[in-house]
Amino acid sequence: MNKGRFITIDGVEGAGKSTQIDLICSYLQRKGIKVVRTREPGGTDVGEKIRSVLLDVDNQEMHSDTELLLMFSSRNELIQNKIIPALNNGSWVVSDRFTDASFAYQGGGRMLNLDRIAKLEEWVLGDFQPDLTLLLDISVEIGMTRIEARAAKDRIELEERAFFERVRSVFISRSEAFPKRIKLIDASGTINDIHEKIRLLVDSI
Amino acid sequence: MNKGRFITIDGVEGAGKSTQIDLICSYLQRKGIKVVRTREPGGTDVGEKIRSVLLDVDNQEMHSDTELLLMFSSRNELIQNKIIPALNNGSWVVSDRFTDASFAYQGGGRMLNLDRIAKLEEWVLGDFQPDLTLLLDISVEIGMTRIEARAAKDRIELEERAFFERVRSVFISRSEAFPKRIKLIDASGTINDIHEKIRLLVDSI
Repeated sequence: MNKGRFITIDGVEGAGKSTQIDLICSYLQRKGIKVVRTREPGGTDVGEKIRSVLLDVDNQEMHSDTELLLMFSSRNELIQNKIIPALNNGSWVVSDRFTDASFAYQGGGRMLNLDRIAKLEEWVLGDFQPDLTLLLDISVEIGMTRIEARAAKDRIELEERAFFERVRSVFISRSEAFPKRIKLIDASGTINDIHEKIRLLVDSI
Repeated sequence: MNKGRFITIDGVEGAGKSTQIDLICSYLQRKGIKVVRTREPGGTDVGEKIRSVLLDVDNQEMHSDTELLLMFSSRNELIQNKIIPALNNGSWVVSDRFTDASFAYQGGGRMLNLDRIAKLEEWVLGDFQPDLTLLLDISVEIGMTRIEARAAKDRIELEERAFFERVRSVFISRSEAFPKRIKLIDASGTINDIHEKIRLLVDSI
């Protein structure tokens, strides 16, 4: 049996990840590919419990290193108990966020040292990486306008604008540092235009 | 103001940690020392939420690395938001379990590589270490008999006897590797005899 492929989608809030993930999953399924859709933090029973600790607005005092360690706890559970078994089973896995988000949010947003995050990445992931990362890029202003419409914000969505500018900036520099894996996609266009670009990239792997 | 001291108590289940911690805290308070008592995993708002994920008997499928990462998430929160502020404030801190337990339970019990645990310890703690670790040592047989009397077992207490033999063995080798910090105490004696030995050790720091 062929091993599946692992695709991650990332970007600032309001970039339209969920819509594009819906379209990617339908596209793959129409091609007869088994698809496992997941998200971070969360995606497993244990991970969803960790997610609720991470996003709980009562936990404002959480230390930034604790936040990062919890993100990687959830990620490890997802990799070991869901992603790797699915790939070995021939399924493709599509994840809403992955490690690049830890560099962007905890490194850029919370200003943790990026080399220190890379050490933790190495500890948890070894050489495991996505086959393709779709980075939906949009200005923070447009992204924030889109999420304003949502009912309630979680602990991280409550951060101020400068935080998200730093997040976006780290995402962009990572796409420059890992151009083979991370594909930057202008997410200001129409849903269909963006999906067309993504389809070509997905076909290439 | 003088900086406080950080004391940790560890050992296999049923070694009598709680009783001895009660006695140490009373002893320090009688000497006019401010004492902050805490425990692992937990000890902070976020840490207690992590504790409930770690000990939940529904989470049997949890990957060992996830367990270790969650232990260090809780530990980081405890160090940064409780232990260091208390020590800087002149209080002494007494913790029911600390990093040695990760080496013993996840390294010995779950057989994770000890050098790999040490890397994560270095990432989280840097050079922060307890001033004194009291290792209450008792045979697994006696320890297990004592905890049999408890009402319900948590996820880790449900492990089999060989698991706890490995835990004890790592505790003992750590006390040999770090003889200045970790003091092995025979916990098969009477409560008062053990407390006497501990008092001398506490006085020495």
